[in-house]
Amino acid sequence: MITLRDFGSFHVGGREVRISGAPKEVIHFTPQTSTELDPNGTYHIEQAYVQYFIPEPLRHDLPVLLVHGGGMTGANWETTPDGRPGWLQRFLEAGFATYVIDNVERGRSGWCALPDQWEGPAVQRSMEQAWSLFRFGRAEDFARQTPFPGMQFPIDASVAFARQSVPRWTTTTEIMKAGFRAALERIGPCVVVCHSQGGEIALNTVAQHPELVRHAVALEPSGFPDADAATGLADQHWLFVMGDNLDESDFWVPLMARTRDSVSALKAAGSDATLLHLPEHGITGNSHMLMMDRNSDAVAALIIEWLTERL
Amino acid sequence: MITLRDFGSFHVGGREVRISGAPKEVIHFTPQTSTELDPNGTYHIEQAYVQYFIPEPLRHDLPVLLVHGGGMTGANWETTPDGRPGWLQRFLEAGFATYVIDNVERGRSGWCALPDQWEGPAVQRSMEQAWSLFRFGRAEDFARQTPFPGMQFPIDASVAFARQSVPRWTTTTEIMKAGFRAALERIGPCVVVCHSQGGEIALNTVAQHPELVRHAVALEPSGFPDADAATGLADQHWLFVMGDNLDESDFWVPLMARTRDSVSALKAAGSDATLLHLPEHGITGNSHMLMMDRNSDAVAALIIEWLTERL
Repeated sequence: MITLRDFGSFHVGGREVRISGAPKEVIHFTPQTSTELDPNGTYHIEQAYVQYFIPEPLRHDLPVLLVHGGGMTGANWETTPDGRPGWLQRFLEAGFATYVIDNVERGRSGWCALPDQWEGPAVQRSMEQAWSLFRFGRAEDFARQTPFPGMQFPIDASVAFARQSVPRWTTTTEIMKAGFRAALERIGPCVVVCHSQGGEIALNTVAQHPELVRHAVALEPSGFPDADAATGLADQHWLFVMGDNLDESDFWVPLMARTRDSVSALKAAGSDATLLHLPEHGITGNSHMLMMDRNSDAVAALIIEWLTERL
Repeated sequence: MITLRDFGSFHVGGREVRISGAPKEVIHFTPQTSTELDPNGTYHIEQAYVQYFIPEPLRHDLPVLLVHGGGMTGANWETTPDGRPGWLQRFLEAGFATYVIDNVERGRSGWCALPDQWEGPAVQRSMEQAWSLFRFGRAEDFARQTPFPGMQFPIDASVAFARQSVPRWTTTTEIMKAGFRAALERIGPCVVVCHSQGGEIALNTVAQHPELVRHAVALEPSGFPDADAATGLADQHWLFVMGDNLDESDFWVPLMARTRDSVSALKAAGSDATLLHLPEHGITGNSHMLMMDRNSDAVAALIIEWLTERL
């Protein structure tokens, strides 16, 4: 049972595009209706969708902004693939106003179908790619669906998880960063919780704007703050959370090294920076999808504890 | 203030696609990470995303399923472009469990970036197209942003509205219908409220499944039930809601005629079918985006009244 003072959504950021000189087209909107459409005109692209929930009682001044990773949407934070409440619900229960962004080009932000705006094709992630990249198990064990021993990801729900996957461009990081920045400016000072590519999108902006983000939680990020270029890091609190079986992946070994380096650089710059490598704390079997793993509530509780101690 | 017993989301429907024989590609996930990806493998496409909210107190047994129109997402039903609570909030306040679908290929349902699956390019709607098609004003008055006299749509918020627009295919109606049907089967008996292309997607299935849908509200639909092919219509209640300035649009004149025909056919088949042409009841100035117009609360109240009288 959750009581909400308010909830709703908004879109922020993006830009206007004007097309001219293109020929008219006959479009069949439905099998029963057609119309001649003029593609010339004014479009708005590259906006970001944000859905927000304000709980009652509101126990904390700072809201939490949840930033999903690549090929995903804000649905990541809702019901888990195996049907349990997600981290959105847990942050609300802890009394945080919670904002969920769909990064630009994903989910309800919409993408750009206009010609000549974005470079390269969109790509889609196969279940085989997800199996390896998200460290559910060894590549050769996909066919048998045999995960790493003690795997916390609900493998039985892998089709439900595959349904959450959406196409992505690989050339739009700067565009997504601008959308995130616009969301941050609209929301005001907040806590950022970002996952995977969400780190690439969020963390440099976070480091450069201590007036907007005093607390950042990076869940297995694929990008890192540039501590040299940042200001005000001494006022910021950083938590990096990493799961299990990182050594099994050629993709994750260097990212774990870069995470350690990033924590060191942030500490050297005066930040309160913590690396929570879950297996070192006896929490084993976590995949890359920490917010969906069977122990997602326990991991959320650790993060909320870290956060509330520093608010 | 809204209390929720439960809220969350799920994806339903769609199909598995297997790709084989394609060459490997090097993908730059972020500027800082790259990996060789094998596009061959297993994908899940054509699922539909549904977000649900169960209010406390729950005053009605039947939930409401909100089905958005073309080039849109479920965000249509949330906060209006000018920042007021949307119909999602109003249905919850009235005590209905409320489900919001993102139709297949829109929003958090994701779309299909795999080759050779869907026919034709995706198209995007310009602000000029929306201005005419959604009857904000005459085409020649777009540049000056001068709407029809007494226009209820918040023209000042037209950029916020443009940001809600997402690309769409024009060839995927049957795929979207399958996703809607899967959602209906998951949700169980419910009330369907559909808008514009949502009518094309929903209404034939509604007419053929009185065991799943006893009450249907069609808001300016672009598709209609086939009353001849349906069974059980005598047990169904239908409400068609139409806005103002229909005569000003070559697109809407025939759709208004077909709406009248559809109401007649449903009545002839024994249904309780009502046409609520708002101007005939003194409610003037409504655009196609009834749920966003300045009088959206008043229109919602009429629909909720019609519904609760028949539950």
